[in-house]
Amino acid sequence: MQPVTRRGFVEAVGAATGFTALSPTDDLATVTVAPERTVHLSGDGVAITPGEYTALLDALCRKVTPAQDTYLLGGEVEAFERHWAQLLGKEAAVFMPSGTLANQLALRALASTRRRVIVPEMSHIYNDTGDACQTLSALTLIPLAPGTATFTRADVEAVLARTAGGRVATDVGAIVIESPIRRLTGQMFDWDEARRISALARERGIGMHLDGARLFIASAYTGIAPSEYAAAFDTVYVSLWKYFNCGIGSILAGPKRVLDGMFHVRRMFGGNLAVGWPAALVARHYMDGFLDRLTNAVHVSEAFYGAMARHPMVAVERISNGTNLARITIKTADPTVVARRLADRGVLLPAATAGGVITLGVNETWNRTTAADLVQAFAQALA
Amino acid sequence: MQPVTRRGFVEAVGAATGFTALSPTDDLATVTVAPERTVHLSGDGVAITPGEYTALLDALCRKVTPAQDTYLLGGEVEAFERHWAQLLGKEAAVFMPSGTLANQLALRALASTRRRVIVPEMSHIYNDTGDACQTLSALTLIPLAPGTATFTRADVEAVLARTAGGRVATDVGAIVIESPIRRLTGQMFDWDEARRISALARERGIGMHLDGARLFIASAYTGIAPSEYAAAFDTVYVSLWKYFNCGIGSILAGPKRVLDGMFHVRRMFGGNLAVGWPAALVARHYMDGFLDRLTNAVHVSEAFYGAMARHPMVAVERISNGTNLARITIKTADPTVVARRLADRGVLLPAATAGGVITLGVNETWNRTTAADLVQAFAQALA
Amino acid sequence: MQPVTRRGFVEAVGAATGFTALSPTDDLATVTVAPERTVHLSGDGVAITPGEYTALLDALCRKVTPAQDTYLLGGEVEAFERHWAQLLGKEAAVFMPSGTLANQLALRALASTRRRVIVPEMSHIYNDTGDACQTLSALTLIPLAPGTATFTRADVEAVLARTAGGRVATDVGAIVIESPIRRLTGQMFDWDEARRISALARERGIGMHLDGARLFIASAYTGIAPSEYAAAFDTVYVSLWKYFNCGIGSILAGPKRVLDGMFHVRRMFGGNLAVGWPAALVARHYMDGFLDRLTNAVHVSEAFYGAMARHPMVAVERISNGTNLARITIKTADPTVVARRLADRGVLLPAATAGGVITLGVNETWNRTTAADLVQAFAQALA
Amino acid sequence: MQPVTRRGFVEAVGAATGFTALSPTDDLATVTVAPERTVHLSGDGVAITPGEYTALLDALCRKVTPAQDTYLLGGEVEAFERHWAQLLGKEAAVFMPSGTLANQLALRALASTRRRVIVPEMSHIYNDTGDACQTLSALTLIPLAPGTATFTRADVEAVLARTAGGRVATDVGAIVIESPIRRLTGQMFDWDEARRISALARERGIGMHLDGARLFIASAYTGIAPSEYAAAFDTVYVSLWKYFNCGIGSILAGPKRVLDGMFHVRRMFGGNLAVGWPAALVARHYMDGFLDRLTNAVHVSEAFYGAMARHPMVAVERISNGTNLARITIKTADPTVVARRLADRGVLLPAATAGGVITLGVNETWNRTTAADLVQAFAQALA
Repeated sequence: MQPVTRRGFVEAVGAATGFTALSPTDDLATVTVAPERTVHLSGDGVAITPGEYTALLDALCRKVTPAQDTYLLGGEVEAFERHWAQLLGKEAAVFMPSGTLANQLALRALASTRRRVIVPEMSHIYNDTGDACQTLSALTLIPLAPGTATFTRADVEAVLARTAGGRVATDVGAIVIESPIRRLTGQMFDWDEARRISALARERGIGMHLDGARLFIASAYTGIAPSEYAAAFDTVYVSLWKYFNCGIGSILAGPKRVLDGMFHVRRMFGGNLAVGWPAALVARHYMDGFLDRLTNAVHVSEAFYGAMARHPMVAVERISNGTNLARITIKTADPTVVARRLADRGVLLPAATAGGVITLGVNETWNRTTAADLVQAFAQALA
Repeated sequence: MQPVTRRGFVEAVGAATGFTALSPTDDLATVTVAPERTVHLSGDGVAITPGEYTALLDALCRKVTPAQDTYLLGGEVEAFERHWAQLLGKEAAVFMPSGTLANQLALRALASTRRRVIVPEMSHIYNDTGDACQTLSALTLIPLAPGTATFTRADVEAVLARTAGGRVATDVGAIVIESPIRRLTGQMFDWDEARRISALARERGIGMHLDGARLFIASAYTGIAPSEYAAAFDTVYVSLWKYFNCGIGSILAGPKRVLDGMFHVRRMFGGNLAVGWPAALVARHYMDGFLDRLTNAVHVSEAFYGAMARHPMVAVERISNGTNLARITIKTADPTVVARRLADRGVLLPAATAGGVITLGVNETWNRTTAADLVQAFAQALA
Repeated sequence: MQPVTRRGFVEAVGAATGFTALSPTDDLATVTVAPERTVHLSGDGVAITPGEYTALLDALCRKVTPAQDTYLLGGEVEAFERHWAQLLGKEAAVFMPSGTLANQLALRALASTRRRVIVPEMSHIYNDTGDACQTLSALTLIPLAPGTATFTRADVEAVLARTAGGRVATDVGAIVIESPIRRLTGQMFDWDEARRISALARERGIGMHLDGARLFIASAYTGIAPSEYAAAFDTVYVSLWKYFNCGIGSILAGPKRVLDGMFHVRRMFGGNLAVGWPAALVARHYMDGFLDRLTNAVHVSEAFYGAMARHPMVAVERISNGTNLARITIKTADPTVVARRLADRGVLLPAATAGGVITLGVNETWNRTTAADLVQAFAQALA
Repeated sequence: MQPVTRRGFVEAVGAATGFTALSPTDDLATVTVAPERTVHLSGDGVAITPGEYTALLDALCRKVTPAQDTYLLGGEVEAFERHWAQLLGKEAAVFMPSGTLANQLALRALASTRRRVIVPEMSHIYNDTGDACQTLSALTLIPLAPGTATFTRADVEAVLARTAGGRVATDVGAIVIESPIRRLTGQMFDWDEARRISALARERGIGMHLDGARLFIASAYTGIAPSEYAAAFDTVYVSLWKYFNCGIGSILAGPKRVLDGMFHVRRMFGGNLAVGWPAALVARHYMDGFLDRLTNAVHVSEAFYGAMARHPMVAVERISNGTNLARITIKTADPTVVARRLADRGVLLPAATAGGVITLGVNETWNRTTAADLVQAFAQALA
């Protein structure tokens, strides 16, 4: 695809007037600004810079005349939420300023007065929110599967049995699955086990929540559609800024009985941003076609990893049941020298740990090169 | 001031390379895009449209190369916070996604285990947050001065006495003043009384918090500097989007002992936006020189109100100890006809209530006209 | 010390087998120990001493063989709760270790997720519980009628209107009336207004709770039966130890939908006393016939007050819409001398305040004298 | 029924004047009533009946004239608290209505704003309080050692490391050890490991709490004094009613910085019993000399278990690192027949589970027999 020059773009859409609500036919994915060529070998997104972001946002605003929202209600945000609900096969979706809030409000609503919530011991909710659910929503998080990605239906049943045996009545109101799981280098929860747990939860009337911050990355690796994943859960959170590059925000999708009126709770928590249309616009731009583009990037990376695994100076470690992260070790060269040489070719290698391990992340920018070019770049950098 | 054409602007700053941290000398206030000419007779800000916002943001990004923040830490946001701390004469300032959160986190920190907090009965905190402080931070809000703007030192002393007489020890940890107060049409808290209350609070070790969402509007009317207001309080919240037109965010300024580490609590509440630099950049653009510009707009409005008060078809009601809001009634003409005629001249009149009352708000856009022109426009529209 | 043989006791009840549930026919009111003769001119109860209490409890245990309860479940406590439910015309009643807990658990249950609760500004709940409802149950207490006993239906409507106008949805879940109100010297809430408020609450689906710690005292003054008062409320709390002299405990009566399962919450709050049968037994002893006895004591006191009002050295101040408390001032004699002289006759006068005011309280011990004897005792003590 | 005259009582104590504080010299342990002879082979206490309790309480009130407390402040309760503080080597002790409350208030105070609390996965706090600490005090309980009695210093260090690595600052404020642990049939926490954990906690400024509901039972088995156990902890809870037979209550001992003012919090939770002297009096009666008496009972039981282990019809299962509980199985006889025969001899055997397992508990009543008599009684009952 040829880059649309700024001038041409301005000429093309300059005459647009009045309100143009964002809709599937608006094809925001075709809006483009001067193309970036840097390949980022880490990160989930395109490492958008402020300059790129503002140029893109400006271009998008020339394509459509965004309808403003008021405290995230109405306008472009509402259209965006409807699009997400449809995409995930849910009745409703709510824009949230952060994933931290999306997760908490989902659990608060699903659990209600049944205050025990089962979570993965390695999850973001359990480790990286300052015990937000416990402190602000008085939920009791029960961690399962220490150090690993997947807990089992039997694990859940044991918690339910222990809960039933307490001297004071308590109930399990929700079960969380995080997949892929950040603290385990993008490893996924075993999908068959997740479905078994989901079936149990439905039998028992327990809410199921998916922390799917990186759900679309999983889909690119498994071929399972986001909506198919979502079908096993009541509520699903997906990050907007990690790989849709819009700076802020997340989506929480689910049934109306859970999400109706949640904007009140969002406001109580201080999540009532005065407007959200910029994030909606940019996210929408990157969402459309994302799965195809990332799938292509995965192909680039798989060919690259295959080749590098045969390189005598490089060790490649793949993550079991993993997604877009892999670890490589450069055995006999100085990683900083290699990185400098790659940078000269527009390929950015992340820093190595003290132990020399480099964690690579596949993202859309891998489409800016080919496996062959990348292998060659490495070969020369390692020489 | 001549508009900087987009082309000229690009030529002027195109050569900029690398990081340019936002600083007072960057004079973002001089950055401009094609000028808006519409006069908005209501609202606190310039009623910025998405198109204007993105064009401005794009222009600002060409003037400086913004340093990105990570979850609101570092980069442009940190520089912005330092600027605010200096401006308000406080040790520190923290960017918050919303004023609702800024207020709650201030009270949560000031009160700590002394859980009674005195608030104005007509305040935003008491009426419009879904009892957030009570529900999420278990604070007991004690409302004073029902229906009016100012409570007295004696009112506070009565609460302290009642608190001391309870059978279980409780303490008052904080006192809130909101000024100007939105639910009272921009009326201000009596400043002398506020200082007496502040003196009492300091004697008793009670925290003082100012909900100064519209603090800079008060300053334009009283000539009292924001920093002078702030000196009577421990913590001060100021809105960023209401009249600095940046879409989201607020500032909470105060002592380090209160604000250090508050980003952890902000994250716990889900207020950890992935980036905040766009709001910092736009707010900074509008902040610099704001007081002078709004003061000028006030002069325009005062001359206008003076003239209109003499018009036989218009009644003008000013708010006692008020700020930028006033009420007018059009006595013998159809307000919608008048509004249409004014709109044809680029002057937007807000809708009247069922009772025919129109609430006008003075903001920067009043500088786009003169009192004489405005009076003439009304005279013709009323004719 | 030689063991007290319990031969007589063993002979009397040795043949008893199995459970002897406390029932109306057991007539515990007729159990008695050596009669006390002291007249206590203050307090709500009989000022029972440890010696009297244990002698009475021992005698009661010889009359019935109490069925033990387990953590307040089953046995005498359950029978006691059933008796209370019947007495107050409610579906259920729950024994609570304290009135503080009874009030909180009632409001927690009635309000549930509708977290605003209207309370009298002078109430125990609002002043003397360390903000327990706010701190532990995250309720927002909205105080009405500062300094007085009765708020109005219009006051309630104003709160409902203000609540409906907030930017975040909140709801009023419960309304509390305290009557008689301790902080107002036993003044009662205006009963007609209470019924108007109750009617409004029922229209709106808002729970009504009566803090009727001293409900039976009110009944002795108004002739309105406890069950008639209770009919206007969903839940009613009555103290057990204040005038039923059993040392600990309270009753919370109400509908099954509110009280079923409340023993779980009671336990969560630590209110799970291992046994409660002693309090149930002693309270039951004093409850039966209480209203008749207190009504008689009221007659004694009214005659006494009438006479004393004519005494030149004494001023009597009655409480408007009051109950068993009144204030007297001894004008020209030393109150401590008067008190000593009365004590010699077995009449205990409470201490005067610094201002010389003595608050008298009518209780069952006034039946140990007559108005004539009491007037004579005062006449001689004042001489 | 004629009133029970209390002539003897009046003659004996009629001359008593004023306050008689309970003190070590009052030797309440020597007060006795007609001796009970039944041997209870289960339970921690003497299975006191209402009749025995009231007779004892009455006798105790004849020995001393108890000073009343007011809402658990002053009088006998205060003297009792001082006695406990001294006994456990702590600065202070507070009477609580239940162990559930004692545990929560200890953790609430120790943790304060450091809201993570490490607990045994099998503990009462974690399983049997309806998540009270989580729901009412917003603590995050982190369970260790699933299914077993003892967690290790390394387990604690792992939690501290994980806590330090979270994205939002959180802290561990307290560590709980329960020993003996009810859900593990009285098994004790490994004492050497407990001391290692205690040393770590002190290095890190983390509070240590002992749920020592049955602490005195542990002491009878290990010879380690209660005060020696207590020295490794900041706060210690001991049950009053389980084996001191006083019907209600518990003791929480610890440093003044933690316990001063805790009566306010106790009241906030509704734990403000109007009086507590009866429990103080009865508990004191059973406490004095308890360790000697229980140690003697242990000797009886050990000889009995030794003999029974050799009986062909009985299997004895002792608990590793256990205390007063053991399991026996009657192999070839009907347990209900055996129980009936034993009951005829005044020996009460608890019911068997469906699997035929009988859990015996050693308590003071084992002193009412000898090992030889008990063995003989079993031999005949089994015959």
